[in-house]
Amino acid sequence: MTDHPLDPIFNPRAVAVVGVRSKPSAGMMGSFYDSLLESDFQAIGGLYPVNPKVDEIKGYRCYPSLLDTPDPVDHVISQVPAAAVPELVDQCVAKKVRSIHFFTAGFSETGDEEMATVERAMIEKLRNAGIRAIGPNCMGLYVPSSRLAFMSGFPTKPGNVFLLSQSGANAGEIISGLVGRGVRFSKAISYGNGADLRAHDFLDYAASDPDSHVVAAYIEGVRDGRAFFDALKRCARVKPVVILKGGRTQSGSHAAHSHTGSLAGSIEVFDAACRQAGAARAETMDELHDLIVAASTSTRRVTGRGVALFGGGGGGFAVLSADAIDREGLTVPKLPQSAVEEMRKYIPVAGSSVNNPIDAFPPEEYMEDMLRLVATAEGIDTLFMSPISGMRPPPGVKVSDPKDGESPPAPAEIATRAASQMSAIEADTGTPVVGILRSGRMARMMGLDVDAVSHAAYEAGIGMYPSVARAARTVAQVLDWKAYREGLPEIF
Amino acid sequence: MTDHPLDPIFNPRAVAVVGVRSKPSAGMMGSFYDSLLESDFQAIGGLYPVNPKVDEIKGYRCYPSLLDTPDPVDHVISQVPAAAVPELVDQCVAKKVRSIHFFTAGFSETGDEEMATVERAMIEKLRNAGIRAIGPNCMGLYVPSSRLAFMSGFPTKPGNVFLLSQSGANAGEIISGLVGRGVRFSKAISYGNGADLRAHDFLDYAASDPDSHVVAAYIEGVRDGRAFFDALKRCARVKPVVILKGGRTQSGSHAAHSHTGSLAGSIEVFDAACRQAGAARAETMDELHDLIVAASTSTRRVTGRGVALFGGGGGGFAVLSADAIDREGLTVPKLPQSAVEEMRKYIPVAGSSVNNPIDAFPPEEYMEDMLRLVATAEGIDTLFMSPISGMRPPPGVKVSDPKDGESPPAPAEIATRAASQMSAIEADTGTPVVGILRSGRMARMMGLDVDAVSHAAYEAGIGMYPSVARAARTVAQVLDWKAYREGLPEIF
Repeated sequence: MTDHPLDPIFNPRAVAVVGVRSKPSAGMMGSFYDSLLESDFQAIGGLYPVNPKVDEIKGYRCYPSLLDTPDPVDHVISQVPAAAVPELVDQCVAKKVRSIHFFTAGFSETGDEEMATVERAMIEKLRNAGIRAIGPNCMGLYVPSSRLAFMSGFPTKPGNVFLLSQSGANAGEIISGLVGRGVRFSKAISYGNGADLRAHDFLDYAASDPDSHVVAAYIEGVRDGRAFFDALKRCARVKPVVILKGGRTQSGSHAAHSHTGSLAGSIEVFDAACRQAGAARAETMDELHDLIVAASTSTRRVTGRGVALFGGGGGGFAVLSADAIDREGLTVPKLPQSAVEEMRKYIPVAGSSVNNPIDAFPPEEYMEDMLRLVATAEGIDTLFMSPISGMRPPPGVKVSDPKDGESPPAPAEIATRAASQMSAIEADTGTPVVGILRSGRMARMMGLDVDAVSHAAYEAGIGMYPSVARAARTVAQVLDWKAYREGLPEIF
Repeated sequence: MTDHPLDPIFNPRAVAVVGVRSKPSAGMMGSFYDSLLESDFQAIGGLYPVNPKVDEIKGYRCYPSLLDTPDPVDHVISQVPAAAVPELVDQCVAKKVRSIHFFTAGFSETGDEEMATVERAMIEKLRNAGIRAIGPNCMGLYVPSSRLAFMSGFPTKPGNVFLLSQSGANAGEIISGLVGRGVRFSKAISYGNGADLRAHDFLDYAASDPDSHVVAAYIEGVRDGRAFFDALKRCARVKPVVILKGGRTQSGSHAAHSHTGSLAGSIEVFDAACRQAGAARAETMDELHDLIVAASTSTRRVTGRGVALFGGGGGGFAVLSADAIDREGLTVPKLPQSAVEEMRKYIPVAGSSVNNPIDAFPPEEYMEDMLRLVATAEGIDTLFMSPISGMRPPPGVKVSDPKDGESPPAPAEIATRAASQMSAIEADTGTPVVGILRSGRMARMMGLDVDAVSHAAYEAGIGMYPSVARAARTVAQVLDWKAYREGLPEIF
């Protein structure tokens, strides 16, 4: 908790959900929060469904109107149709709530001038009563520590990444996607049209929030350019900020206008503002994910362009990986002769390469020594590696017999061992380790549970990336980011 | 079967595997083909393991030497160490086999001049005896119709894609990856150092093979530039050819030299040769996969840059998708007012967009009509869509109650229905349908089995792509490819 004015809004206790459906409904409205009544997210200060037609929903007492709910209610989630919003706003004022989140859509984003006027009027009434609004047309809050979430399935465990997103679906995709890679969140907010609270308010709050170490943003349009830029500068000065701007192109900007009523503005101006503020800019959803992982793991500590790649995908994989690394402006330096000779003690010549990239599968007992040798070789700034412990060799490659009568270790144990090996190599050598973990078929063939390994590695401070190409791009972007932050406080 | 001189080599019948291990072995050598003894691939004319130390392996009679195997043996797979190869070569000559595949590595690719000399001598001896060689340092043949494969798990069902690959691991990755997307292969060959048979021989064969409709290649280096270019021109003239060149960059070309002894040459010359020949050029493994899917489905029929996107991922997803499409030089045209009005009959205004991209979830009974309307709208050349039948709406979106007492359809049935809907829309409207099927978490949430849907769609002639960005890039590349093929025979 801080004394920031938005602190109560980001830490709601008692929550009322107005417009909960009494039975499964057609259409999109009012179903997200209904499903939360059955989840682990039940608001620490009380969760009060409101629907005049029923007395009880899923074991909760249901109230006929907001005014009938017990006191206090901090935060209201509006699932009522747009036409019912003015009445609900009056009730919020009477109830003296702190904040209201309009899941309700159908306001300014429709392009209908009348609904835009309604939107402005309701926001003004709320403001005059000291009530802040989130939305309309959005998913609202995910705050694990307050046990509030906008989708079931999100982790109840908090982390240190703060997310602000104009799009609810993208917020969901960012959270779900990153959760699989081990990332956990302090707070996330989807704010849609941003009629009241908007990007600069959230950046300002994130800068001051001690639980948030990394700030990620998905933005479609900025209404107050100056306020946004000032807040971005303040926030990016003290914390790593990564921004994905939707609507970078002409087609995307048309779509953004239909989606959140955003006017995209010049992408060149936006990019220049990010750069000047010292924030990182992602061009795609994948880049956003990767940069968030990088900013919250040791990948942020990369200092140079020399990459050693310990493959495990065969010679052709090594060739394409070297191409992918080179394409991002990084290099794959040849190792010194002494290191090559040392490695050749463990690895036969036929069917392997011990120069960089290293396409070889030494006996497991030599693996860590070999990686330490590579990580400390001249010209190597970063070690790209697949997890080794517990990994089966690529299909068909038999390294040793399974030990008689010994059952293979459980995925969770494999994951923990792989993660601690990677972090030990990093700790011993001082060279950042960047983990490569190809998903799907290849991981299954190698006996790895991608999510378990990624999570264990993340907890150990190691970022995992789904391909060499993405890891290389991320490292190149971090180097670039650090370069243009020169003169700003050290945050990596 | 054709009368092409390489036809017997690509259609082997009786096969001897020399150097089969009597027990699981350390290191890479000799394990791939061992595991095939337990698989569905057992060579239609007989499979004869050779190992002097044992009488029987996995239920097969094992022979002490190649000379002891029954007659005839067409094809020999050498798993013996490099030092034992000269003796095996003599036995092949005595046995009058047609071809030998050296899985054995440790020759010219090591950079050792002595082993390069051994390689040249053994190839010369084989040639003089009329025996063709594949390799060394490679995985050899996958020919479903001859029941021969270099990895267990490959489909036994043949298809119409021919693959030549200098790298075994990449051949495996191309086949495994594409199999998941529905693609099936006529023949595939991994040829490593290419000491005897090499790229131009395989291109020449593929051009003449009636079972091969699309030709894919992974190449690290070309030894006979003129022969290669001539064969490429002949093949690309009559069939779609897609090439991924490994070692495009300096780092990659160093790695390629260690891998297959290849000297990469100028990438500009290589690219220009592909373009002049009318072949498509992939820059990454993903692009190679996507272009093969495109060349063997209706994606190859795209004619213009106007894309309609039917989303199903929410408004923010639509915005980023429009950006991804625009970034590839395609467009997302606004639909005519009449089409928008027609769609608004089915779809509420709040929380949806019916202009392009279409971010809306109409009741299922209207879905197909709506898609036909979009596909035939002015300015739309291609319809990007997610499969609809059987798809659950995005998380939290409830469209209708599950019908009482009715169990959900099986994944295979969902897949078949989704595929036939997509192909019906394409057939009715004449607009190519490009399928988008995001893998992993998102597909699982939507209740889709990615592989089953991809396979069913592929069989119905529809290509599925794992993201809008990749679909857009593929369409742009196909348009470019068709443009520079102008003047060449129509093959799409």
